[in-house]
Amino acid sequence: MAYRELITPLRTIMTPGPVEADPRVLRAMSTPILGQFDPAFTHIMNETMEMLRQVFQTKNHWSFPIDGTSRSGLEAVLTSVLAPGDRVLIPIFGRFGHLLAEIAERNGAEIHIIETEWGQVFDQDEIIQELKRVKPKVLAIVHGETSTGCMQPLNKVGKACHELGILSIVDAVATIAGTEVEVDEWQLDAVIGGTQKCFSVPSGMAPITYNERIEKILAARKKVERGVRTLEDNADVLQPIRSNYFDLSQLQDYWGPRRLNHHTEATSMLYALREGARVILEEGLEERFARHRLHEKAIMEGIKAMGLTLFNDVPWKRPMVTCVNIPEGIDGEAVRSMLLEQFGIEIASSFGPLHGKIWRIGAMGYSCRKENVFAVLAGLEASLIRNGAAVIRGEAIQAALDVYEAAGDEQLLS
Amino acid sequence: MAYRELITPLRTIMTPGPVEADPRVLRAMSTPILGQFDPAFTHIMNETMEMLRQVFQTKNHWSFPIDGTSRSGLEAVLTSVLAPGDRVLIPIFGRFGHLLAEIAERNGAEIHIIETEWGQVFDQDEIIQELKRVKPKVLAIVHGETSTGCMQPLNKVGKACHELGILSIVDAVATIAGTEVEVDEWQLDAVIGGTQKCFSVPSGMAPITYNERIEKILAARKKVERGVRTLEDNADVLQPIRSNYFDLSQLQDYWGPRRLNHHTEATSMLYALREGARVILEEGLEERFARHRLHEKAIMEGIKAMGLTLFNDVPWKRPMVTCVNIPEGIDGEAVRSMLLEQFGIEIASSFGPLHGKIWRIGAMGYSCRKENVFAVLAGLEASLIRNGAAVIRGEAIQAALDVYEAAGDEQLLS
Repeated sequence: MAYRELITPLRTIMTPGPVEADPRVLRAMSTPILGQFDPAFTHIMNETMEMLRQVFQTKNHWSFPIDGTSRSGLEAVLTSVLAPGDRVLIPIFGRFGHLLAEIAERNGAEIHIIETEWGQVFDQDEIIQELKRVKPKVLAIVHGETSTGCMQPLNKVGKACHELGILSIVDAVATIAGTEVEVDEWQLDAVIGGTQKCFSVPSGMAPITYNERIEKILAARKKVERGVRTLEDNADVLQPIRSNYFDLSQLQDYWGPRRLNHHTEATSMLYALREGARVILEEGLEERFARHRLHEKAIMEGIKAMGLTLFNDVPWKRPMVTCVNIPEGIDGEAVRSMLLEQFGIEIASSFGPLHGKIWRIGAMGYSCRKENVFAVLAGLEASLIRNGAAVIRGEAIQAALDVYEAAGDEQLLS
Repeated sequence: MAYRELITPLRTIMTPGPVEADPRVLRAMSTPILGQFDPAFTHIMNETMEMLRQVFQTKNHWSFPIDGTSRSGLEAVLTSVLAPGDRVLIPIFGRFGHLLAEIAERNGAEIHIIETEWGQVFDQDEIIQELKRVKPKVLAIVHGETSTGCMQPLNKVGKACHELGILSIVDAVATIAGTEVEVDEWQLDAVIGGTQKCFSVPSGMAPITYNERIEKILAARKKVERGVRTLEDNADVLQPIRSNYFDLSQLQDYWGPRRLNHHTEATSMLYALREGARVILEEGLEERFARHRLHEKAIMEGIKAMGLTLFNDVPWKRPMVTCVNIPEGIDGEAVRSMLLEQFGIEIASSFGPLHGKIWRIGAMGYSCRKENVFAVLAGLEASLIRNGAAVIRGEAIQAALDVYEAAGDEQLLS
């Protein structure tokens, strides 16, 4: 049986990820392969580390990607830091807090959880109180919850962890390169980003960064692979890291000057990550964050002008995801299918307690453009009317236009 | 600081990997992103599974990629199968046998090792004797050793494992799509392939396949993530899999009809893998294996005609890697550097006991072409002369031409 050429429909992707990749990133991936120890390639590795430092707003030496999807970055950091029996506090405000708990649990850590309702976040003082009570080795927390469109402030928590001698590990997969993630300013010890969201690079790499406090733990757990071990490498380690693939102490030797063979770096994905970071730095972090806020506002105003209500119209709203309450009596999946099939536009449903109750409309990275905002508002209004919903007609795009005009922004349609 | 556009030198990559990707594969990666649950994308996932089954020569239902480099596939299978205390036998004949031991050890397995000198492989009866003595749950073994250019016959071992109630897990990273890996015929239970070698797809995915015997173990260890768990999912599991990312029982639910959200599939890498598999199946497995053998012969004859000797001129030679003994008094790294810098050709050194003693010349996948064979022979001869080696001049390419003429093969220069 013969398989046809890869032909895909062109989509307008307005979900919380994966989103459209910048065309420059897609082109970069067509670059021919280089060997992993070719000086031309190790130069690209070093440049990518430099650029990632800037995206993470950090001076941390270690800033490099894990070769896997976003959760590979979470698992690499948690597995490398947490030994069995280590105590970890995980405040949960949505699905991805559960993922942190799941990964920590599988590493044999002693899990302490505080939970709040989906749609809420924590008062930082509440977290700090709990840190003082539980005295964990690690605080693991999500910055932006993809499931609820909410964002946890972290500027006080990071500092408190430093004062209390606790390590903070932060899942910034859904926020990096779309809104402020100030690793050094907030004193976060390890931060994991994602590529397939505001970074606008295809899924398949997880940029991470961490500081000397984390490095110290790695040094104590370091065990060099027998196949490449030399005499000065310690072979007897008390609590070796449970994974080889996610062993940050080994990955450091691969990304560092020793260039000790570990995996074969994912060549084309690294090309993509480098180009994605270059696009971000050329735009400028502040300008990029402002762009995400502007289009967010246009979407929010458009949705409200249609007569719909927002699930996350709160001060802790994640600026790149707008969650819309599905109107009473409307089948949310029927509307989503119509949007995809008739308009080629993808929006998302949600998980767990929010499944069937909200739609999530993302505007991230390259997908975060004026024409995409107009397209999703027009398509949603038409699909709702077609599904019998009593929406206010013709006002959504007018409201979005008002937002753009008020911002005086002419250059946005690229 | 501004970073320049991604510009890379064009290389002729004659290493054991990563090798040149087929230009069709590179182009496929430029295809725009699809959402992970877009029907157009899940169709691509299903097609890729179908094609992988054919490449693995198996009827196994489960044949899909792990999102990571080759060793992520090894770790996914070993971590999902081996619980702490499980006994595993690992015959080691090079560096990558040590990697299997390392991964198994980090999972708390009880490791039994038999070793042979680098450059040798095992008599299958010796392995079978050891299986009977040790009575392990699992035999983990490398098929083609990248470090030594040797290949372990497995046709009797797989059958013996079935008779003894032992599971066989085989690292075929370095052999898949370049020589016979007959998963069903040899009765192998789980096999891990690589993309960056004979598959000619960039590093970053690890295709795996496994049968019902493995599936049964996964079912007993299955634990659905709390964020997406429903009431019928078992939450109390005796020996849960230690990794979330590598949990094959969860990956099955993502690749199967339930489409339970796990990671976000690496979109562009999956496009690449699909196109790579399509290229392989269009060429035909038998034709592809024959092509690898032909160019191997041309390289071997060319090297010998130069007056050099081979490290792996043995019946158990891996047909896509030719290991050359570095002549006495010659600095192997100086020759390699000259090849790269003057000719843009990359060949490899080796690891451990073979470091500094051999060069490894690969001819794999898209790199396995007549013009590449001529280039590497010409470049190596010239670089050796320039480094003062007493080689026989002008005979290497003549010997390779003889091989091609004897094969009567005219259509090879594509």
